[in-house]
Amino acid sequence: MSLPTSQDCILDHIAIAVKSISSTQKIYEDMGMIFSGVIEEVKEQKVLTAFAQIDENAHIELLEPTSSESTIHKFIEAKGEGIHHLCFKVLDVKKKTDELTQKGYKFIYPEPKIGAGGCLVNFMHPKSTGGVLIEISQRPVT
Amino acid sequence: MSLPTSQDCILDHIAIAVKSISSTQKIYEDMGMIFSGVIEEVKEQKVLTAFAQIDENAHIELLEPTSSESTIHKFIEAKGEGIHHLCFKVLDVKKKTDELTQKGYKFIYPEPKIGAGGCLVNFMHPKSTGGVLIEISQRPVT
Repeated sequence: MSLPTSQDCILDHIAIAVKSISSTQKIYEDMGMIFSGVIEEVKEQKVLTAFAQIDENAHIELLEPTSSESTIHKFIEAKGEGIHHLCFKVLDVKKKTDELTQKGYKFIYPEPKIGAGGCLVNFMHPKSTGGVLIEISQRPVT
Repeated sequence: MSLPTSQDCILDHIAIAVKSISSTQKIYEDMGMIFSGVIEEVKEQKVLTAFAQIDENAHIELLEPTSSESTIHKFIEAKGEGIHHLCFKVLDVKKKTDELTQKGYKFIYPEPKIGAGGCLVNFMHPKSTGGVLIEISQRPVT
C-alpha cells in the first residue's frame, strides 16, 4: 500500500535514548537492521547519533549522551533507556507550528530552530499530544 | 533513499496507548495524518484499534482499552498515555525467535502466537532491547 500523496506528515525517525550506541546497535543488528556506519556528534545537543533505515523514509535514531548536562542523559536518569521522541517530516514547519499553536497545541520553541542536518524543527509538548514527545521537521532548502 | 532490499526487519507500526481513540486521533489528524476510518476491536487483547499510515509500510496504531483488565489499561495506569511498543515485520517469526533466543534475548511467548489480522507474532522483552517493547510479526500466508 502506498502512502496517501496528500499527506503532509510522514515518519522521519524514532529516537531512542541509549547509554551506549555500540551495545544497543548490536541488538537492532541482531534483529536484522543495517546501520549506516556513521556515528555523528551533535554538539549542541551533547549526543552521539547512529541511524538505521526501517522504511522508505523512516529511520531508527540511537541517541547516546556525551555529557551529564545532555537532556538525553537526564531522560535516562529519570526514566531509563527507551523511546525518547517521534519525528515527522512536514512541508512547512513554521506554518505547521503556527496552525497547531492556534488550535491550542503547545510547542517547546516559540519559533522553529535549525536542528541536525540543517533541518528546521520544533517539538510538540507531550502534554499536547497524549504523552508522546513529537518533533516536526522540514528538510533544508537545497 | 530506498530501503536496503536485503533487510529482514522493517517497521510495521508504532503502537500508542491512549485513553480515548477519538480525542487522540484528532491530535494526529490536526498534524496532517489520515486515519483509515476503521476502528477494530481486538477482543483477546481487550482493546480498540485505529490506524493511520505514516510511511510506505508503517502505521501509527492507537490502542484504547475496553476493560480494566487490558494490559493497555494497566500500562496507562502505571505510566500514563504514550508509546507502548514498536512492531517490525520479519520474514519468519519462528526462525527469528529461535535465532534471537539462542543469542540470549528474552521473549514474552515461548512460541509465536496468532495476533491481529492473522499475523504470527512474538514480543521481545524490554530488558533484552534497551527499554523498548518490540513486537516481531510475520504476515499470514495467503
